[in-house]
Amino acid sequence: MRLDLLLKQMSFIHEIDKLKYVFRKSKLFSSDRHENDAEHSWHLAVMAIVLAEHANEPIDILKVLKMLLIHDIVEIDAGDVFLFDSVVRQNNAVAEAKAAERIFGLLPEAQAAELIAIWEEFEAAETAESLFARAIDNLEPLLQNVSNGGGTWEEFSVSYEKVIDKKSVIKHGSRALWDFTEKLLQESHKNGILKKEEELRTI
Amino acid sequence: MRLDLLLKQMSFIHEIDKLKYVFRKSKLFSSDRHENDAEHSWHLAVMAIVLAEHANEPIDILKVLKMLLIHDIVEIDAGDVFLFDSVVRQNNAVAEAKAAERIFGLLPEAQAAELIAIWEEFEAAETAESLFARAIDNLEPLLQNVSNGGGTWEEFSVSYEKVIDKKSVIKHGSRALWDFTEKLLQESHKNGILKKEEELRTI
Repeated sequence: MRLDLLLKQMSFIHEIDKLKYVFRKSKLFSSDRHENDAEHSWHLAVMAIVLAEHANEPIDILKVLKMLLIHDIVEIDAGDVFLFDSVVRQNNAVAEAKAAERIFGLLPEAQAAELIAIWEEFEAAETAESLFARAIDNLEPLLQNVSNGGGTWEEFSVSYEKVIDKKSVIKHGSRALWDFTEKLLQESHKNGILKKEEELRTI
Repeated sequence: MRLDLLLKQMSFIHEIDKLKYVFRKSKLFSSDRHENDAEHSWHLAVMAIVLAEHANEPIDILKVLKMLLIHDIVEIDAGDVFLFDSVVRQNNAVAEAKAAERIFGLLPEAQAAELIAIWEEFEAAETAESLFARAIDNLEPLLQNVSNGGGTWEEFSVSYEKVIDKKSVIKHGSRALWDFTEKLLQESHKNGILKKEEELRTI
């Protein structure tokens, strides 16, 4: 037993329990309860396993899983930022990088470096794995909104056009999932749970 | 886009949201809130990534992650059963097998078969991957009890001897993690948060 390694690893395992207290804007699929980051990360990982065949390019699914499982850990320090709040999102990048150093830094050096690199790859959104992981990360809250009667779209008066604009990143990871998403958004508009800009202006 | 596949996959993704409502006996590391199965599965997956080097044998970490991410999904139908309740645990096996058929059965056929096989491999506890996954699954609630002042040991008067007996399966997946666990249990006894049988009898 390498006790020095194990103690560092246990300290990290203990610390990340706090992700269960970071609540997102989105609510669960069929309830009014907000989702926490740990549940969210679990759901994304299972989605990636199930939807991997729809990726645009061949992907290393193990790397995608690692990305999705750790991508929100920085929010323990930096907090969750709503996708449609672009000002705060930009300012938060520094806080998130600092959080990555502190939290992954609890691990033995080589492991810390590996997980920070994976987190940075996810953030940079350039590789096939990170593009697919981000597609999944963008898809889940959208499915939640469709399932629970509009969710954050209703609550924060987010328009159809803004959703199309922000969520179109899905196509960089999976054109098939984006085609499906577009259909869902059109249906959501028809059902009245997602309004176009001109409709929001007249409310 | 293969719409027939996607609709089945989406139906599964929607269904497993219910894992976020299945609460375990164990509580979080530093609070009095019970943990739900989705959070639990996430924590185990990250633990497996971080602790993989301590496995007794070389393991396919991707398979271990798949196991840990899906191992509790059957509890959506069959419910969570406390480790130390051996009568209910045995009866529950039939309900769990039925749940696996129903829930994984929402997926396209080949995927359903793959995930059921992985779940069965986890349950059978014979391969290197399943033995390591089960070590991690047994370790997490033990760490929680150590962290939150005794947790379920205190609440249900579980003895030191019973914990040693039930948790010793950890050694089949990782002797290093079992050595570490034994030390934690000895410390927990010294600190008074885990009592020996004779001490429980005199309370």
